[in-house]
Amino acid sequence: MNPLPAPPWRSAIRFCRACASPVEYRVPDDGDTRVRAVCPSCGTIHYENPLNVVGTIPTWGPDGAQVLLCRRAIEPRWGKWTLPAGFMELGETTAQGALRETQEEAGAEVAIEGLFTLLNVARVGQVHIYYRARLLHDRFAPGHETLEARLFHEHEIPWDELAFRTVQETLRHYFADRRRGRFEVHTGDIA
Amino acid sequence: MNPLPAPPWRSAIRFCRACASPVEYRVPDDGDTRVRAVCPSCGTIHYENPLNVVGTIPTWGPDGAQVLLCRRAIEPRWGKWTLPAGFMELGETTAQGALRETQEEAGAEVAIEGLFTLLNVARVGQVHIYYRARLLHDRFAPGHETLEARLFHEHEIPWDELAFRTVQETLRHYFADRRRGRFEVHTGDIA
Ligand SMILES: [Zn+2]
Ligand SMILES: [Zn+2]
Repeated sequence: MNPLPAPPWRSAIRFCRACASPVEYRVPDDGDTRVRAVCPSCGTIHYENPLNVVGTIPTWGPDGAQVLLCRRAIEPRWGKWTLPAGFMELGETTAQGALRETQEEAGAEVAIEGLFTLLNVARVGQVHIYYRARLLHDRFAPGHETLEARLFHEHEIPWDELAFRTVQETLRHYFADRRRGRFEVHTGDIA
Repeated sequence: MNPLPAPPWRSAIRFCRACASPVEYRVPDDGDTRVRAVCPSCGTIHYENPLNVVGTIPTWGPDGAQVLLCRRAIEPRWGKWTLPAGFMELGETTAQGALRETQEEAGAEVAIEGLFTLLNVARVGQVHIYYRARLLHDRFAPGHETLEARLFHEHEIPWDELAFRTVQETLRHYFADRRRGRFEVHTGDIA
């Protein structure tokens, strides 16, 4: 769910969530330095902050030679290939969210193996966090957001048909680390 | 800024941000599986998601034997010791946010060295992300949220006077890794 649309939370705040008064955009009086949507009636300050997108790089085979990609059945990037990922929800951890998205989008069962990439996409106010995950079997059941889910060897990856830069970076790091024989945590910024 | 208060964004959504109508709490019709605050008039769905808290573990000395802690001048945990950290803002990366908080709370200048801990606090809908950071000098200028900023050797750390479990975990990993002579990225969940 919540599959990387134009961030819905970015629609302008015009009215106070607590009392319905029109908000004002100004720096609050509490020592803050940023402009916020402030309610002149009840004082509520409406903060907006970056969102986490959490997902996995599901791998298959004793040496993790294949990875699972999903072909998107939704906009943006309809028909492009992606790793299973989506917005983190309240009440879950980053790893639990990554596991949930993998089940929802690919119908795949995985065991989380460890944090792999943390990639900032500051332009859209997102942090993308991917975990390496071992597939428990190779029977997939794509959800309604996915046209098709299948395994790819490195030489089969559709590099020009990937949905997002963070997916490209995560796959690139995966195969590079795999060749070296050691997986590390990678951080980076997507311009 | 935004120094770990009870999450202000958690105050209940009663009215639509776009049109001021009273919202309804229900599962949206778009395939979603979670209850959201939905506007019956204009259809706006009000998502609420976890927040990132970003900070540094500022170290001093050629071998990083000392770390910088700040004594909080604000609630919660007034008077307790913490690492510089606060809510990540739109338009910045996790590392930029960590750098900003270090400047704001301690008046300290650092060079970010690498991701160090990613700790989930699912109970309050937060992910705490700390970077190792090398202090460029040892002159500090605490902001209005900080009573005092000073360097501590490992044996001086006020373990019983730390403000947050994520600070305790980050310091524990730091000194353990330092003894081993190798810093890694650590992940964990705070119950
Ligand atoms: Zn109000
Ligand atoms: Zn509305």
